[in-house]
Amino acid sequence: MSVTAPKGFRAAGVAAGLKAHGLDVALVVNDGPEAAAAGVFTTNRVKAAPVLWSQQVLRAGVVRAVVLNSGGANACTGPRGFQDTHATAERAAEALGIGAADVAICSTGLIGEPLPMDKLLLGVDATASALAEDGGPAAAEAIMTTDTRPKTTVVEGAGWRVGGMVKGAGMLAPGMATMLSVLTTDAVASAEALDAALRAATRVSFDRVDSDGCMSTNDTVLLLASGASGVAPSAAELAAAVTAACHDLAQQLVADAEGATKEVAIEVVGAASEDDAVEVGRSIARNNLVKTALFGNDPNWGRILAAVGTTAAAFEPDALDVAVNGVWVCKGGAAAEERSAVDLSGRAVTIRVDLHAGHDAATIWTNDLSHAYVHENSAYST
Amino acid sequence: MSVTAPKGFRAAGVAAGLKAHGLDVALVVNDGPEAAAAGVFTTNRVKAAPVLWSQQVLRAGVVRAVVLNSGGANACTGPRGFQDTHATAERAAEALGIGAADVAICSTGLIGEPLPMDKLLLGVDATASALAEDGGPAAAEAIMTTDTRPKTTVVEGAGWRVGGMVKGAGMLAPGMATMLSVLTTDAVASAEALDAALRAATRVSFDRVDSDGCMSTNDTVLLLASGASGVAPSAAELAAAVTAACHDLAQQLVADAEGATKEVAIEVVGAASEDDAVEVGRSIARNNLVKTALFGNDPNWGRILAAVGTTAAAFEPDALDVAVNGVWVCKGGAAAEERSAVDLSGRAVTIRVDLHAGHDAATIWTNDLSHAYVHENSAYST
Repeated sequence: MSVTAPKGFRAAGVAAGLKAHGLDVALVVNDGPEAAAAGVFTTNRVKAAPVLWSQQVLRAGVVRAVVLNSGGANACTGPRGFQDTHATAERAAEALGIGAADVAICSTGLIGEPLPMDKLLLGVDATASALAEDGGPAAAEAIMTTDTRPKTTVVEGAGWRVGGMVKGAGMLAPGMATMLSVLTTDAVASAEALDAALRAATRVSFDRVDSDGCMSTNDTVLLLASGASGVAPSAAELAAAVTAACHDLAQQLVADAEGATKEVAIEVVGAASEDDAVEVGRSIARNNLVKTALFGNDPNWGRILAAVGTTAAAFEPDALDVAVNGVWVCKGGAAAEERSAVDLSGRAVTIRVDLHAGHDAATIWTNDLSHAYVHENSAYST
Repeated sequence: MSVTAPKGFRAAGVAAGLKAHGLDVALVVNDGPEAAAAGVFTTNRVKAAPVLWSQQVLRAGVVRAVVLNSGGANACTGPRGFQDTHATAERAAEALGIGAADVAICSTGLIGEPLPMDKLLLGVDATASALAEDGGPAAAEAIMTTDTRPKTTVVEGAGWRVGGMVKGAGMLAPGMATMLSVLTTDAVASAEALDAALRAATRVSFDRVDSDGCMSTNDTVLLLASGASGVAPSAAELAAAVTAACHDLAQQLVADAEGATKEVAIEVVGAASEDDAVEVGRSIARNNLVKTALFGNDPNWGRILAAVGTTAAAFEPDALDVAVNGVWVCKGGAAAEERSAVDLSGRAVTIRVDLHAGHDAATIWTNDLSHAYVHENSAYST
């Protein structure tokens, strides 16, 4: 049920002609009684107009509606792009009888092209007319770009819920997240509590997806609370539920990444700090030679060590251990178990690196680098 | 004539069976009268045994011979790997009647496998017997791995020369360099002068090649001076000639990079500092979405801006200009000239980014990301 699983939310998705076919405009409305919200956004310094707009909206900690469109990122579009985002918020506000300053906007698609505003504004009207308490799935479908399937989640609390949707298949490496995502809850929670829960959640979920090392201009994750359940969970309960929802959605991103044939978990253990573990995991995740080796079902641990060696993390080269799908192919920085013992025929791959430098750990999720990735991304805008 | 173009050097390349076919062991000997030398090495913290050995040799500033092998990197091979390198140096020293501490070693090939020492040592004997004043081309051929052609250079000074050879086609991104290279000169120069010239040269040549973002464990560039010309150039003359030689070899690396269909110069201008320009250029060079777009002949400047946005360089997003092959497709952070005006049908591509933040500049050389790169690197070790 996506974002409409919690009480107090309606949503819709319509086809407005922004894409050649399929739904492309979504609307999520928080009917309250409360309207607290939090958001995290790309740390890319080249930010799309809707990101700049939504960051302003979130400053007040109140969001009553979110308009999302695929078929265009509205990024690198100059002052006109920001005016277009403003006009979109005004149109939704008018249709809903609320203020435009309470309407967040998310866009995704090609960078550098202005949105066809005539089509988008009619699409906003259509979504407002189509709002429904079971509209979550349509909204999740309308935000897809190269995604092959909609991605949604529901996490049950004690008398309250978190629902969510996400899109993202390429340009998929976090500055904070990597995609558009709207999470909803009918819990009673302040904007500050939502912000704390959302940052805790994204830090260990979306932030640790690194499919292709490329950070987007449009990454946005919003968390909206209606309070409609009447239940006020503790900060820990809220954070746990939001983290579970983000984790589920993040795994769906990795599972549907452009052209991927492998879903790879890089578990770095024995690190002197969590930051070290993340740095090492990300270095491996972004190494094209590791990624092509995985595509070729090759447990090439030498490339993994070469990637580890480029980091500033604490470790001694002759103390590094590496396991691929449970086989310790490298111990003490040199060959150990036979690499032929590694079974890479399946889609799931786990790389475990023990730095032997401490007790911290982190997992980064990534994909292989395949012919299909090259094909899809060499033909996207032309 | 490669490394034997300057007076005072002999070289050889033989087939010792380390690779399935072709030459695979090279020897370069400095017959003097002088034997000053300098070296720069990978900054990867996971360093191959021959790198650790050669760093020790270079500490004294004297190199009388260099043994190079393809067919195995001798990286991540533990204490045995270092013993093997030591034994190789001893064998060459014995054959040449010099000390092992004056013999540098370079290895390249698969990481993590021990070298077949019986074959290698017989190969060292064979190269010592085959040493010739015109042996440079054979040496250049013997260090090839996935290179499709040997890469050599000669730069003429006033009565003296610099000669050189390089190998490298993958794992091609600098910590300092990205490959094995031996440069020779018959100039009279101290080890300190050679070191200064070599560091100045690699900083603006090999260090600015970033083919695939992956830093090797074995990168080594050596500069040997025989003094046989009797000419002592100024520091500036020496640096200029060594820089010209390194630049020529670096361009040959980019031209022969694994699976590449484009040779891309990323010129970053208007930077607040040279470091900023290098950071921006490298971020673009390492962005897989930019690289696949170039493979698809797509002047996708939005992806270029997204890559620039991930850096800490000084710039304002709405002041960025981007030209692809001379067409300013982006001005002021938004679309400008028609992207259809860009001709990407050729192999040479120039991306020019103006940060409008100062007066410094730097150029990074890279390649596209092609099906052939994925194919070659998914099938390398298996």
